Order: sequence, then structure tokens, then C-alpha cells
Amino acid sequence: MQTMTPIPMPTHQDTAHRVTVLNRHDRPFHVVLAQQFDRPTIDQLCQLADMIRTIGNARQGSQFLRTLLSHRRAMLYFIQPSTRTFLSFTAALQILGVPYSDVRDRSTSSEVKGESEDDTIRTFSQYFDMIIIRHPMEGFAEHVATMLNAMPRTIPVVNAGSGKDQHPTQALLDIYTLYRSFQEPSRTEPRYTRNVFAGKSIAFVGDLKRGRTVRSLAYLLCRYPGVRLVFVSPPELRIGDDILEYLTRHDIEYSLTDDLRDGLPEFDAIYMTRLQDEHDAAGESKKIDYYRYSLSYDMMQHGKPTLAILHPLPRRHELDEQLDTLPQAKYWQQVRNGMWMRAALTATIFNVDTAIRDHYHAYYTF
Amino acid sequence: MQTMTPIPMPTHQDTAHRVTVLNRHDRPFHVVLAQQFDRPTIDQLCQLADMIRTIGNARQGSQFLRTLLSHRRAMLYFIQPSTRTFLSFTAALQILGVPYSDVRDRSTSSEVKGESEDDTIRTFSQYFDMIIIRHPMEGFAEHVATMLNAMPRTIPVVNAGSGKDQHPTQALLDIYTLYRSFQEPSRTEPRYTRNVFAGKSIAFVGDLKRGRTVRSLAYLLCRYPGVRLVFVSPPELRIGDDILEYLTRHDIEYSLTDDLRDGLPEFDAIYMTRLQDEHDAAGESKKIDYYRYSLSYDMMQHGKPTLAILHPLPRRHELDEQLDTLPQAKYWQQVRNGMWMRAALTATIFNVDTAIRDHYHAYYTF
Amino acid sequence: MQTMTPIPMPTHQDTAHRVTVLNRHDRPFHVVLAQQFDRPTIDQLCQLADMIRTIGNARQGSQFLRTLLSHRRAMLYFIQPSTRTFLSFTAALQILGVPYSDVRDRSTSSEVKGESEDDTIRTFSQYFDMIIIRHPMEGFAEHVATMLNAMPRTIPVVNAGSGKDQHPTQALLDIYTLYRSFQEPSRTEPRYTRNVFAGKSIAFVGDLKRGRTVRSLAYLLCRYPGVRLVFVSPPELRIGDDILEYLTRHDIEYSLTDDLRDGLPEFDAIYMTRLQDEHDAAGESKKIDYYRYSLSYDMMQHGKPTLAILHPLPRRHELDEQLDTLPQAKYWQQVRNGMWMRAALTATIFNVDTAIRDHYHAYYTF
Repeated sequence: MQTMTPIPMPTHQDTAHRVTVLNRHDRPFHVVLAQQFDRPTIDQLCQLADMIRTIGNARQGSQFLRTLLSHRRAMLYFIQPSTRTFLSFTAALQILGVPYSDVRDRSTSSEVKGESEDDTIRTFSQYFDMIIIRHPMEGFAEHVATMLNAMPRTIPVVNAGSGKDQHPTQALLDIYTLYRSFQEPSRTEPRYTRNVFAGKSIAFVGDLKRGRTVRSLAYLLCRYPGVRLVFVSPPELRIGDDILEYLTRHDIEYSLTDDLRDGLPEFDAIYMTRLQDEHDAAGESKKIDYYRYSLSYDMMQHGKPTLAILHPLPRRHELDEQLDTLPQAKYWQQVRNGMWMRAALTATIFNVDTAIRDHYHAYYTF
Repeated sequence: MQTMTPIPMPTHQDTAHRVTVLNRHDRPFHVVLAQQFDRPTIDQLCQLADMIRTIGNARQGSQFLRTLLSHRRAMLYFIQPSTRTFLSFTAALQILGVPYSDVRDRSTSSEVKGESEDDTIRTFSQYFDMIIIRHPMEGFAEHVATMLNAMPRTIPVVNAGSGKDQHPTQALLDIYTLYRSFQEPSRTEPRYTRNVFAGKSIAFVGDLKRGRTVRSLAYLLCRYPGVRLVFVSPPELRIGDDILEYLTRHDIEYSLTDDLRDGLPEFDAIYMTRLQDEHDAAGESKKIDYYRYSLSYDMMQHGKPTLAILHPLPRRHELDEQLDTLPQAKYWQQVRNGMWMRAALTATIFNVDTAIRDHYHAYYTF
Repeated sequence: MQTMTPIPMPTHQDTAHRVTVLNRHDRPFHVVLAQQFDRPTIDQLCQLADMIRTIGNARQGSQFLRTLLSHRRAMLYFIQPSTRTFLSFTAALQILGVPYSDVRDRSTSSEVKGESEDDTIRTFSQYFDMIIIRHPMEGFAEHVATMLNAMPRTIPVVNAGSGKDQHPTQALLDIYTLYRSFQEPSRTEPRYTRNVFAGKSIAFVGDLKRGRTVRSLAYLLCRYPGVRLVFVSPPELRIGDDILEYLTRHDIEYSLTDDLRDGLPEFDAIYMTRLQDEHDAAGESKKIDYYRYSLSYDMMQHGKPTLAILHPLPRRHELDEQLDTLPQAKYWQQVRNGMWMRAALTATIFNVDTAIRDHYHAYYTF
């Protein structure tokens, strides 16, 4: 049951086909891959997240949001522990008034009576209208999407992280946070039609080999011509060649370095990551001087005043707590953005995004 | 604490008295025994489940349902693991807008400070308006019903499975599934006044000795004169004599066999069950050729085209996955029916069934 | 991480400063200490709890309550097991329609990836609008309050029990139960402006050294001149001197005794407690004859007929189950009162207490 049979890494030839299986009417139905999201979809999600944030802030607007999907129910199947992502999804569902249940431990499930995991998922599909999955097995969410497509009652699946695979909703909240950081506050709506990434320099720092969030975010950033990516990592933890090839194919400018301080003055955003030593085969991480891929309070004097610091969290020592109070620190807002983005995504999957836009334009624009 | 003191098996003489303790105004108040349900009650529950299904499907109707019981709260005390039944009840409560909490693990409860389980239940009765219990001890739900009857604030108890005892809500969803399978689709309302079971032949297959679902369903089917029951099992796993005596006393025709293929062409429904080898004393199940009590895709050519296949799930090898896509396969719908039936039961316990009927007739009939 | 660094016991000099950190506009913002509650605040909370009880009893009123705070969300961080307090808070939140999530087990949290507990709490503060904490470490809730005061997005913290520290919401429900017990039923509103404690004699019985509930309740009772407290305990388990000094400083009359039967005829209320032997260093509790600090059915003939018996529960043998059916037994109502009081507290923290009062006066007074 628990043997991890990894699905072979996709080549770019078959990605188009995979997206076809996951989308309906050119929109994400199942949400499994970052590649499902083209630029208009990302832009609209960011805009919708902003609207939900505004509407949901007051009692009246919150009441409106909570009636939109009260006839839907969601299952959170989180077999791999993750408090942060779990709570982010539950908060998003609460904002939209979607009742949910969760299964987070196989020992309480029917599997003790010998049920297959596929049958467990099929059972969920009878009670719920959406399944959000976090699972240790690579490719599991995509497997479930395919399986449910064969059921008379097909419901959408959202990948909340499968193995070392992608983590598309993390990528969406990351790009939403960058979006908000790069906005000029004075600009009026509609701001999301502009490519705010053009000419921006974004550094990814740390364990780029094993962190899935960077991979997923790179796929999304390819939708924005003119963005410049800098991959800062120890040589042993370099970003995968498949990502670099993908960037080249999409004409995205990138560079690689093992020195963080060198490029610091030029960065518009820094995306920090922790050392993923839980994936070590034999303690090889211990040989790496990860201190060189850490950000301290003092280093801020060398960066732009408008620099945005992101981190998918949890952090360790690579991100000094002293930075928390600086305006550059966007990582706590990033956590909160995840809630709004996941609400926007859920609303879009269930086709109530238009109702939210209409409500917003009726009550919140002048 | 955990010593299983089984309550003596009831004789038919005292069932009437037990029902009196559990019912109020001739309706189930506590839901513990299948014998509490007479034919009008079953018919009304099936009809109500259909109405809730129809009303709850749209946003407006769902909003109506969710306000009916928002001033009630439910406790799910599920000490015995059961994902399927647990989620079915939570989905039913979500449909009716009943907030709930759950306790599924004694290690997090006050019992570590030496509290008796009776006091734990009494505490629940102060916060909640209904307790749904799944417990390893036979007779536990009935014990709780009696105990709560003695409290100033008495709240209803629902038996979601106690030991090898009955499982009445499973029986209700089973009979609801049979009901829907035997309907002629062309018939208009009111369809539930007719005895659709008259002349139907229903086979129960497998481990009939130790599966409590078959026992409870047999009690319900006795309410429908003219139904024919066939018990197909290995000799070692025959249905209990008490059930057969009950059938005889209620003039229900039945037969016993150890051969599934023989009677297959005549069955209108087959209720499959898995081998309950977790109840083995010394691995005696291993000697049984359970393959003879399995259903395969190929066998369908010998059955009626209108055959309905049910299974309480989880399944193992006795029910081929290839059957899933056939119209005969009703077991996934059966799962979903459980949600509607438990919503109907909850609405009935709290006396909002009439409000639902009124709403249905006002908006959904012509 | 788990090393219990106890915060030094406060002296009365610094309590005033601590309250300043926790309050906003002279009202509790964070709820950590019983000393935050002055008499008008306690009186108003008791009155509000009564109003919520009345309003919430019917479907219409319940609907009103459930819309008041639907735009807020709560986190229950209950690392120390406590079913009773946990369920009481969840019921209170359900009454007010506040969606919530919980974390009850560190093993499912991000801490397995090396996150600090402070960062876990900071993450909660991004998703939720209130954190309710039960934690084994003394002073933890106060630490969190201070930490969150430094965040751009500050949200209130409620102490649901930290170590051997205070348990202020238990004290509030205890005093609410005493309030209701001492009311003359014939009196009309507004009854909460009167000091019903003047002239009343309240006995605290049992392990007064290690039970935090008695400590917190003593702080609250000091707000009511004329109340008389009797501490009945074995000499080894005497109430702490800091509490006695506090009473003296506030001119509250008290006495100490090791004999329960002696003073029984004079008590207006008895607050029973269990032996807290989980705090034993070396089984010292076994030498104590705790039977002398137990209440039996027979002893009731020596008490006033209006005597009110309270117990924070769970109970062991110190409180005979035979007492449960007597009118003197208030401990089950006390459990239920906790739910109403915690709803009143939550409403007050979020400033919707006035809306509830207005609703009450519009619909429920004549």
C-alpha cells in the first residue's frame, strides 16, 4: 500500500496532454500542475483574491460569501502532515462557507479493515464535492483525478502537495504575494492587466534541488515575459535542469550563482528556502555551509528599500527573526495571502467567481 | 473500563419494552434498534431522504435546509474507528446546518484524569442536543439512552454501531437503496405508499454470522410482506437462528444455501458482504473458500439485467472492481444514500420533517 | 523546545502592569488573568451569558447570533488534553457562528520540520482572528499575548489553562453558576447590579494547593465585598499563602479548616475539587485520607436546602453520583454554563456585546 511507486517525471511533450485531462472548458477543473495556469487565469485569480479579501472583511460581505457555496462540501485528505497548508485551506473554505471534513490519519480509516486507498477516495467522492489531497506519494493527486474522471459522479481534485512533486497552490500564493509587492500603491484598478513582473529580478535562494515550491513557481513566472530569475544555491543543491530547459524554451532570462551577497543590491524580490535535509540519503546536507544562504538584518543595508522577502515557511536559521518587523518582510503576509488565493481558486473551480466579481463591482467600486 | 461486558442478547419478549424506552410518541427518539422502525416510519424516511436530496441540490434549497437546525448541535462519539459512517453522519449534519464536534480517541479525553465514561457522556449532554455513538461495546448506545433518560436534560442518542450489535442507520440506508432500485422510474409521486418489495427476491451473501448489517436489515425487511430472502453463506458462517425465528414469526419467506451461482438468475438484489475475519478466534476463516461467495464481472450474464448489487463496504476481493461501471452496481450510490437517509433521520428526530415536506410541496411539485 | 521554564510567580506589584499589557480601553483584549476582570465586567458578562442563553434557544434568535461573527475565525491550540474545556469553547463558537480550526497534537504540525512554536503561533495569527490556548507550560498564554502585540496584525489570545497557572474562563463560569444559584427567582431584571454574594458563605473543599480553578475563582470573588470564604483541606493541601494575602488585602473574610462536616450547616455553596495526584512528586497523596473531603448523599440532611454544590469536574469519589438528581447539584448546569459564559466572553472580545443587548431588549423584555 505504502510503497512509493513514483510516476515518471513528465517531459514537455506530454504536459499538454496531462493538462487536457485535468482542465474542462480550458479552465482548471482538477488542480494538479502549475502548468495548467496560463497568464489570464493567474491574473484573474489574483484579482479575485483581492476582491474576496475586501468583501470578506466586513460582516455583510462575509455573509454574502458564506452563502455562495453552502451547498457544496469539501474533503481534506491530508495523509502527509502539514499544519500550514491544511489550515490555509480550511480558512479558505470557511470564508466561502463550504462545510468540510478531514482525514489526516490512516489508522482511523476503513483501511484497517483492508480497504484499498482507491476505494477510500471513491467513498469520499460520494459525500463531498471536492477533494483536497496532500500525500507522500508523488503523482498521487493526478492518479486520483484520472480515477474520478471514470466515476459517474466526477468531482474536482486539488493537489495540496504530493511527494517531491509540484505544489501548485503554493506557487499561486507566492505569485500573488509578488504581485502585491510589485504594485505601485497609487495605481487604480484594473491593475491586473499589466505585467508587473517585466524587468523585475527575483532571486531563489537555498535548497533549490529538493524544494518543490520553487519548481512550481518557476512554471508560473514563465507566463510573464521580461522577468529575470537568479538561482542562488550551493552547487550540490542546484535547481533541476528540467526547469532551466523549461525557462529557456519560454525565453525567460536566468542565471545561477552560489553567492547571495553579490547580487543582493539588484534583487527586487528574494525567495528564501530552508534546507530540505529530511530528503537526505546519508546526511550529505551536513557538509554544506548553509549559513551562506541565510538572510540577516545587517544585509538589508545592501538591498533595495523596496525589496520583498518571501519564504514558504517553516523557516530555520536562514531567515533571521529580526527581519520580521521590517517592511521588506512579506512572508507573514504571504501566509495570509495563501488563504485568500485558495478561496479564489475554490470559487473559480465551482464557477462562482463571476458572482463575486459582480458583487464587488456593485458595492466596492466607484 | 475497557472490559466488554456484553448485554445479554434480547429475546423477542422484551423487545417491545426496549422500544418503549427508546421511542417518544410512537416515534424513535433514541435510535438504537432496527425494530423501532415500523413500515410507515421507514416509508416516510425514504420519502424525506428523496426530498432532502432534491432540495439540497441547489443553493437556495440548501440555504433553507441549513437554517432548520442551526440552533442544535451534535456530538459524534466515535470510539471505534469508522471513516465511512463518521463522514456520512457529518455530511448529513452539514446538509442540515447542524454544528457538530467529535471525540474519536479516548487518549485526548478527560478519562486520563480518571473520569468515568458515563460522566464523559453526561458532559456531552450539556453541550450538545444529540449524541451519535459508535462504540466497541455491545449494547453501549442503549445503556447511554437509559442513562440520559434519567438526566434533567435528556437528549437523543443515535446508535452508529455498538460492538457486534445492530447498526440501524446502515439498515435504513440499505433499505432506502433497495427502495430506489426497485422503483419503476416512470411512476409519479406518491410512490412510497406502495410495497415495492412484494415478490422481490433478495440474496444476502457471505459472512452472515458476524456481519451486523445483514441482521439489522432483516428486521426492517420483515415490515414488507411478500419479500423473499435467500441467505447464501458457507455453513460455518450461517445467519443466526434468532433472525430466522424472527422471519418465521413475521411470515417472511426465506431459504438458505451455500451456492451463489445456483440462484443468481432469480435474484432481484444481491447484498454482498466481506469476510469479518477480525472477529476470528483462531484464524478459522482461513479454511473457508470465500471465493465461492464472490461476485465477478462474468457472472453478470447469468443475472437479471435489473439486478441491484449492494455492499455495505469496505469490500475486498468478493466484489470485483470491474463491476463498478455497470448499471447493476448500486454500492457507490448506496454510500451516498447513507448521507441523505441520515439527514432524513436527524430531521425526523428534531421534528423538522414536516417543515421539509411543506417546503418540498411548495416548491418542487406541480 | 519542551523544557518547562516557569515564569516567576507574579507579585501584586506587577499585576497592574500585566493587566495593562493584556487590556485595551480598560476591557480585556487578551484574556489571561482573572485579575483582569473587575466587578462591572463580571456582572456584564453574566448578564450577557443569560441573554445569549435566552436568544439562542429558538431558531430565529439562533440565526441572529450566528451571523454576528461569521466574518471572524478562531484557532483552538490545545496541546494539553482537555475534552471538557475544548468542547465548551467549540460549542460557544458554534453558538456565535464563528468558524474554527484546532491543533491538538504537535506531531501533525510543522514543528516536525523544525519550526519554532513561536512561528507556529505567528502562522495561526495570519489565518485566524482569535487564538484559544491550552498548554502545559505555565505562562505560555501570556507569552503569546506579548508576542502577538509585536505583530502588525495583533489578534486576541484566550488562556484556556496554562500549566499550574490560572484558568480564568473556568473562574468566570464558576462565578456565573454561583450568581445563578444565589438569585432569588422572583426578582425581575436588572438583577446583575446587586451584590448577591454579600453575606454568603462559600466553602472550597479538597486539594486547594494544586487546583488552579480555586485560585482563579478567589481572585474574582474579591470583587464582591461581604462574601465569606472557607477553605476546607488536608493540612498538606492548603490554599497558597499568596491567595490568602490577596484576600486580606481586599478585605475579604476567610477561614481555614480541615473538617468538612463541621461547617456544613452554614455553607451557601460548596465548591468540591478532586485530588490532583498527577502533580505528585513521589506519591505523597496516597497518605491523605481524602474520604474526609468527600460529599455523600447522607450529608445533605445537614446542609441548607438551598445549598449549591459545584465541581469543576472531572470528579472521582469525592462527589457521590447519588447527589446528581438533587436540586442542590449544580455541577452539570455548571458545565453548560461554561458554554454560555465563553460565548459571552467571545462576543465581548469582538465588541458585539452591545448588538446582543440591543437585540435582547428589543425582543425579549416587556
